[in-house]
Amino acid sequence: MKIAFCCEDTRPEPWLKGLNEALPGAEIAIWEPGVAQADYALVWAPPQQFIDEQATGLKAMFNIGAGVDALLPLTIPAELPVYRLEDAGMAVQMAEYVAQAVIRFFRGLDQYEADMAEGVWQHQRNPKRADYPVGVMGLGKMGERVAKALTVFDFKVNGWSRSLRDMDGVQCFGGMAQLDDFLRQSRILVNLLPLHAETENIINARTLALLQPGAYVINVGRGGHLVDTDLIAQIDSGHVSGAMLDVFREEPLPESHPFWKQPKIILTPHTSARTLAADSIAQIVGKVAAMSRGESVSGRVDLRKGY
Amino acid sequence: MKIAFCCEDTRPEPWLKGLNEALPGAEIAIWEPGVAQADYALVWAPPQQFIDEQATGLKAMFNIGAGVDALLPLTIPAELPVYRLEDAGMAVQMAEYVAQAVIRFFRGLDQYEADMAEGVWQHQRNPKRADYPVGVMGLGKMGERVAKALTVFDFKVNGWSRSLRDMDGVQCFGGMAQLDDFLRQSRILVNLLPLHAETENIINARTLALLQPGAYVINVGRGGHLVDTDLIAQIDSGHVSGAMLDVFREEPLPESHPFWKQPKIILTPHTSARTLAADSIAQIVGKVAAMSRGESVSGRVDLRKGY
Repeated sequence: MKIAFCCEDTRPEPWLKGLNEALPGAEIAIWEPGVAQADYALVWAPPQQFIDEQATGLKAMFNIGAGVDALLPLTIPAELPVYRLEDAGMAVQMAEYVAQAVIRFFRGLDQYEADMAEGVWQHQRNPKRADYPVGVMGLGKMGERVAKALTVFDFKVNGWSRSLRDMDGVQCFGGMAQLDDFLRQSRILVNLLPLHAETENIINARTLALLQPGAYVINVGRGGHLVDTDLIAQIDSGHVSGAMLDVFREEPLPESHPFWKQPKIILTPHTSARTLAADSIAQIVGKVAAMSRGESVSGRVDLRKGY
Repeated sequence: MKIAFCCEDTRPEPWLKGLNEALPGAEIAIWEPGVAQADYALVWAPPQQFIDEQATGLKAMFNIGAGVDALLPLTIPAELPVYRLEDAGMAVQMAEYVAQAVIRFFRGLDQYEADMAEGVWQHQRNPKRADYPVGVMGLGKMGERVAKALTVFDFKVNGWSRSLRDMDGVQCFGGMAQLDDFLRQSRILVNLLPLHAETENIINARTLALLQPGAYVINVGRGGHLVDTDLIAQIDSGHVSGAMLDVFREEPLPESHPFWKQPKIILTPHTSARTLAADSIAQIVGKVAAMSRGESVSGRVDLRKGY
C-alpha cells in the first residue's frame, strides 16, 4: 500500500512516524511533483497539481482537519471519495476553548483580573445567567460537543444548523428561515459552521444587529464567516461588547489588520482545536481497514455541498 | 415570626426585600445590640455579642454562605441548630471558575493571548491531556459539581475528602492517609475544602512539592488553606508554574502583599461563587417551612468538626 502525504503548514515527522508504526507494510511518501501513484492520500490544502497527478488513481483522500474549505476551490474528480476528520480529539478542544470564552465573558473575569492587576479590589454586579443565552452555529461533531458542554454550566443554549437537529437540552433551529429567530434569542454567538458559499460572511452587520444587546462573538469556524469591518463597527457602536477570535481570513493575521488594535477583541492564533496526529492517524487507518473489508465509512465529504 | 439579619459586608436591601416577599407575615430586622429576640437568624461573620444576645432564643441560625469558618472562633450554644447554604446557585459558579482556570492553564491560553497582544503569531507545543491530571480537594456540593464539570472535558480527575467518597468518573482518595497519593497523582490542584483546624495551611511547601512538576494551584476555598510564602517559593523554584487565587487570608488583599507583584499568579477578588440572595432566601425559607412541619432539614453544621 502506498500513501501520499501532501499537507501544507504541517510538520510531517509525527505523521510519517505514526503512519509507519500503524501500517508497517505501507510505503509512505511526502508528495512532490512526479512521485509514484499512491493508493491513499492525506491532504491539507493541497495544490491543484497534486489532484491532477494523483486523484484518478487514489482509492480515497483524507483531509486532516474537519473543515474542507481549502478543497472547495480545487477541481476534484466526483468519483474520488474524500473524508474529513471526525472529532479525532478536536471536539473536546473546541468545547474547552468555547466554554472558557463563554465563562469569562459571562462572569466578567477579564475586568476582575484587569482591576486586580492595578491593585483594585472591586465587585461587579452579579450577572444573571438568564441574560446570557448562547447560540451555537453549526451542530456537527464539534458543535454538538460544544453545545452540550455549555449546558453543564446551566446556560440556555440555542443551536442552529442547516438541517434542523434534535438535541437534549439545546433549543434547535434549522435552515435560513429560522436563522433570525435563533440570533434574536442569543447573546453570545459561537460559530463552528463549515465554510462554503452559503455560510460565507454569515456573521455580518445584519446578523450581528439581531443578537441581544451587549453581545459577544466567539469565532472558531473560519475567518471567512465573519465580515471583519462589521464586527468592529458593532463593537464601536456598543451593541457588541466583545469577541474572542481564533480564525481569520488571512492567517497568520496580517500585521496591518485592525483586529490587532481592538482591546475588546481577544485574539488567538488558530489554536482552538489543533489536529492531533496520533488520534487522526488512528481514525484514518481504521477507515482504510474498513474500506478494505468493504465496509461503509463515515465522514465522507460532499464537495458540492461544501462539507 | 421574627427574623434577625446580621451579615457583615452584605448589602441588606435585597435580603430584606426578598425575605419580606417570601414571608409576608414575618418581621425582619437588621440586628443591632438590643433588638428584640428573633426566632431565626441569617448570619455572615456575626459578632460574639449577637450570639450572646440572641442564640439561646433562636430556633435556628442560617449562615448565608457554604463555609462556616467565620463561626468557628465564636462561642455558640451546642443545642442551637446552625445551617450552611447548600449550593444555592454557588456550585455552578465554582464549576465555571475552576473549569476556565483549568482550561487556560492546560491550553496555555494566557501565553497565546500575550503573544497576540504583541503581534506574535506563534504555536506552542500541543499539551497532552494525560500530563494534566486535576486534583479536587473537598467533595461537598461544590467540589462534586466542580469535579464532574472537569470530567466533561476528559480530564483525569482525582478527588480528596476527609471521608472517602465514591463518584463516577472521579478517582477518590479519603483521609490524611491518602492525601500524599492524591497529590502525587495530580498536577493541577483545586481547593474547595472547608477551613478548620485540620485543613488550615494544608497547601504548604510539603504538599506543593508532592504535586507533579509544572503544577498549578487554584484556590477557591479560603485564604487560610494556603501558606502564601510557600506558594511563592514553589513558583520561584519553577516547580509550580502558576496559580489562580480568589481567596486570601486578609480580604481585600492588603496593598503590601507580595501576591500583587507575582506575574504567574492570577488574582480575583473573592468572586468565584457569589452568594445569590434570591436562591439563598428560597432555600432558607424552604428549610424554615420544613422545620415548622417537623421535618428534618439538610445542611446542618457540626461546629466541632468545623463544617
